[in-house]
Amino acid sequence: MTLGLRDRSYDITVERGCLSRAGEYLDLDRRVLVVTDDGVPAKYADTVACMCSHPVKLVLPQGEGTKCLARFEEILTVMLGEGFSRGDCVAAVGGGVIGDLAGFAASAYMRGVDFYNIPTTSLSQIDSSIGGKTAVDLCGIKNIVGAFYQPRRVLVDPDVLGTLPERQLSNGLAEAVKMAATCDAELFGIFERGEAKDRIDEVIERSLLIKKRVVEQDEREGGLRRVLNFGHTIGHGVESEEELHGLYHGECVALGMLPMCSPEAAARLRRVLRSLGLPTEYGNIDISRVKAALTHDKKGDGGGVTAVLVDEIGSFRFERMTYEALSARLDGYLETERGA
Amino acid sequence: MTLGLRDRSYDITVERGCLSRAGEYLDLDRRVLVVTDDGVPAKYADTVACMCSHPVKLVLPQGEGTKCLARFEEILTVMLGEGFSRGDCVAAVGGGVIGDLAGFAASAYMRGVDFYNIPTTSLSQIDSSIGGKTAVDLCGIKNIVGAFYQPRRVLVDPDVLGTLPERQLSNGLAEAVKMAATCDAELFGIFERGEAKDRIDEVIERSLLIKKRVVEQDEREGGLRRVLNFGHTIGHGVESEEELHGLYHGECVALGMLPMCSPEAAARLRRVLRSLGLPTEYGNIDISRVKAALTHDKKGDGGGVTAVLVDEIGSFRFERMTYEALSARLDGYLETERGA
Repeated sequence: MTLGLRDRSYDITVERGCLSRAGEYLDLDRRVLVVTDDGVPAKYADTVACMCSHPVKLVLPQGEGTKCLARFEEILTVMLGEGFSRGDCVAAVGGGVIGDLAGFAASAYMRGVDFYNIPTTSLSQIDSSIGGKTAVDLCGIKNIVGAFYQPRRVLVDPDVLGTLPERQLSNGLAEAVKMAATCDAELFGIFERGEAKDRIDEVIERSLLIKKRVVEQDEREGGLRRVLNFGHTIGHGVESEEELHGLYHGECVALGMLPMCSPEAAARLRRVLRSLGLPTEYGNIDISRVKAALTHDKKGDGGGVTAVLVDEIGSFRFERMTYEALSARLDGYLETERGA
Repeated sequence: MTLGLRDRSYDITVERGCLSRAGEYLDLDRRVLVVTDDGVPAKYADTVACMCSHPVKLVLPQGEGTKCLARFEEILTVMLGEGFSRGDCVAAVGGGVIGDLAGFAASAYMRGVDFYNIPTTSLSQIDSSIGGKTAVDLCGIKNIVGAFYQPRRVLVDPDVLGTLPERQLSNGLAEAVKMAATCDAELFGIFERGEAKDRIDEVIERSLLIKKRVVEQDEREGGLRRVLNFGHTIGHGVESEEELHGLYHGECVALGMLPMCSPEAAARLRRVLRSLGLPTEYGNIDISRVKAALTHDKKGDGGGVTAVLVDEIGSFRFERMTYEALSARLDGYLETERGA
């Protein structure tokens, strides 16, 4: 499929085995910085590097800590040291951390060189590898520094998910559930019938198709793109509180989606999340700290947020909410959770 | 005048006294980071800050050393600490260093907040404040890391040039001579008649008009925009060699333009440069080091550059040149210089 953004349009290839055929899809006959991390099986980056005429491989430590300005500078310094020019490129082989960081570096080197994204986790294959949001964290705030910078091409090879632990797989599927709940009742049906993992290629494609259409209409999140934040406002609150407890991003989003649904939609969503092994109960999460994190959400403006609400699965509406109203909504949901 | 780039179009106001009326032109009823340096008279930044509802002033050390990733991080950290959101903005009050650095930070904070540029040197008023090139240096290479990011508005107040030393003024005028030599024979006439400093408002406006038209046609320097590099390829070579000798950027460009002209055009150009107190002779500059710096020009690709040549004042042509051919051209020019 093609993500159409005038002169910055690009193809997204979802195809088993496409990683090992990367040379057919990408222009690798130049200097290529292959960025990966030590949590990604080395063979994936090696496969890509082997197809480049001038590969330079950079293996960073796994984890969110890598998404920082120091690593950004490291990447740029390597490129400079290796004599990269404007016609050379960067290829990310990894999950969201590597894609976001390497994409930001590609956007900034000589004010922009070609960027290829080859996502290797379900989260990045389903969501973060397309759309052009690149970023690093600063002072503990996620994604606060970055650029809108579209890749030149995205290669999604579902085969590589075979090496992904089950919990990681579900972590990414939470974003597909998000797309389904807001925009695609049929895709939600695939989840309800418990077929998502068996039909993973289709789940990835449908999710990317939804995201692609949203990004085409609103690249810079001025309006419609906010639908992709469904579950993310409270989710980010849970995430900052839970950082030390070790919940994954998708698990926090799972928890964040539930209070934003009508009771009927929440009931259906809860069953789907449970079937994927995703959390559905706040349990012993410190709600007061989640709320405090909400009001510190640096992306809000004017003292509130544009919340995404799902009354009926497959559709959504926006509602401008103060942080107080959002907190009250969370409280109301927790009441029913306790009552249930 | 308006620089037209679809949804990123913006107004450029050239008007005496507009700095003290900044509040009429800019939306300052929000958090505004006013970035300046200690070489700029403090009153300029203070004037702007006084008109903001929530000003935060940041005074950086004067000089090219400020254009680095550490200062980039410092600006972002200040914005984060002061609770800047997507709806807030950055205003640069200073020369090219401040504009390039603050613009890059504005491009990256939350992936982009509004950026106002209020240039206070002739160089930035004539050239660098418009066009959207933002950058920092890395490992001694200038402008190697940055973004194409257009300001939301540019305020050019020629009154502030009154506090600028004569040599600084001529430094900026070298860029106006560049625009004139390549694109505007009438403007060149103003220089030839020695009227440039008396008609500085007109010189600024005409220069900005040329640059604006070039940028509108080629924002990202894929083709036409390269004309703005006239004199800059050899100029950069001189600049890296001369860094310790203290030649200004415009002075290096002056030297860099001469070898790229026909003998007739060079003769006219030489007279204009001399009348502005700009250098016209290579004298004791180490040519072998200039040439070495040329081949290390990281912006070149494929072993050469697209040179801008002026056969007749007011027009130009592009010529693809190897570094060897460029060196030979420089040698040829130096022969005639010695002969003259």
